[in-house]
Amino acid sequence: MPRFRIDIEYDGRPYFGWQRQAGQHSVQEAIETAIAGFSGETVTLFGAGRTDTGVHATGQVAHFDLSREWPDHTVQNAINALLVKEDERIAILAAQEVPDDFNSRFSAKARHYLYRIHNRRPPLTVGFGQAWHVSAPLDHAAMHEAAKRLLGTHDFTTFRAAQCQAKSPIKTLDRLDVSRDGEFVEVRASARSFLHNQVRSLVGTLKRVGEGGWDADDVTRALEARDRKACGPVAPPYGLYLIKVDY
Amino acid sequence: MPRFRIDIEYDGRPYFGWQRQAGQHSVQEAIETAIAGFSGETVTLFGAGRTDTGVHATGQVAHFDLSREWPDHTVQNAINALLVKEDERIAILAAQEVPDDFNSRFSAKARHYLYRIHNRRPPLTVGFGQAWHVSAPLDHAAMHEAAKRLLGTHDFTTFRAAQCQAKSPIKTLDRLDVSRDGEFVEVRASARSFLHNQVRSLVGTLKRVGEGGWDADDVTRALEARDRKACGPVAPPYGLYLIKVDY
Repeated sequence: MPRFRIDIEYDGRPYFGWQRQAGQHSVQEAIETAIAGFSGETVTLFGAGRTDTGVHATGQVAHFDLSREWPDHTVQNAINALLVKEDERIAILAAQEVPDDFNSRFSAKARHYLYRIHNRRPPLTVGFGQAWHVSAPLDHAAMHEAAKRLLGTHDFTTFRAAQCQAKSPIKTLDRLDVSRDGEFVEVRASARSFLHNQVRSLVGTLKRVGEGGWDADDVTRALEARDRKACGPVAPPYGLYLIKVDY
Repeated sequence: MPRFRIDIEYDGRPYFGWQRQAGQHSVQEAIETAIAGFSGETVTLFGAGRTDTGVHATGQVAHFDLSREWPDHTVQNAINALLVKEDERIAILAAQEVPDDFNSRFSAKARHYLYRIHNRRPPLTVGFGQAWHVSAPLDHAAMHEAAKRLLGTHDFTTFRAAQCQAKSPIKTLDRLDVSRDGEFVEVRASARSFLHNQVRSLVGTLKRVGEGGWDADDVTRALEARDRKACGPVAPPYGLYLIKVDY
């Protein structure tokens, strides 16, 4: 029973998130349908990150099993061909047969996210929906300094969605960097795994620092409060990208 | 009678080009409507480049006259506020009062265009509609070499739309550079002025070179033919950006 790994890029806007849900159009369902279309097999696709509605990916990874052998490039090209009906919002960047013990979700050693803030007074036009537009000038250096308070192993209850299904609120944040690239402020977050809405909650809180309303001590207090109400506003989904998964 | 210059960015996809046309939604009309909305005056907006349907701009320049004085920042902010109804597809990047003899179109010393080709086998997802997707690997170095044949003053009849209204097909092309930035092949073209569809016609022809079907000598022959039929396929509008106008 060959197992395949696929690397996936998608525009999250037209989809009700990664995960298949009854009556909704999800990325998982779109790709499962394409796999069934070329292989004739009904498969379940397991993704490394269950991205929310509107969240993008340039490096999502998933695995699935087929009963017969296919060349890697056939798997990639056939899925892409059948995804044309998705108006080119999903692309399979790579496909390869992997050992049976590869699991896109449980074998992942680290997940890397990028959050893009578009920071100027006039709105973003051509790239609309690909970054969070924030009009007020952001002090990215202050955001970067405050972000250091969140590194390491903590109880991240403050930065966790009410509907989060993780057993424990304790996670280890390995990277949280803030830098500027012209009109864009970029937040890069890496961890073995994240709580539901964690990155967007962290970004919303760092934005408060960037605007000058909060300082790094406020961020420490918010973390230590272990209370959802201490969190800044959750940043919108369309600025978030799952960019890489390490195995 | 104060004259204002505005610098404009827009996503060309929702618009029937720059120029106002009866029964169509154009960028010019959208901004003229916004100017009327804050000033109460019906103005005509003159743009430096009459971009076609679907063509984007990050550095379009236009001028218009009002009968009363307004602070520059009020002009910018009021137009942007009224453009919100355009779903943030147009942004005024700057506004300033200029001398009466400034003319966005006739004072322009050079116009700079960027054409973006997305060059990999899988389609472009998040940036869909912001570049021309070409699956076959393009040899950007060969494209750059061939582009040199088109520099200078020539009769560009081959690379001119049938509906072009310019009096003469003779233009001087000052820059035509092709380079690669990861998955993107970028063509940069500069001239005092261009014929209708000239950049897109040049890009369509250079793509033939990049795919290996044509060489630089074919490009020279196409130029010397002075015949529209000698041109490669015209590249689609949504890869083209008017990025800068020099005065």
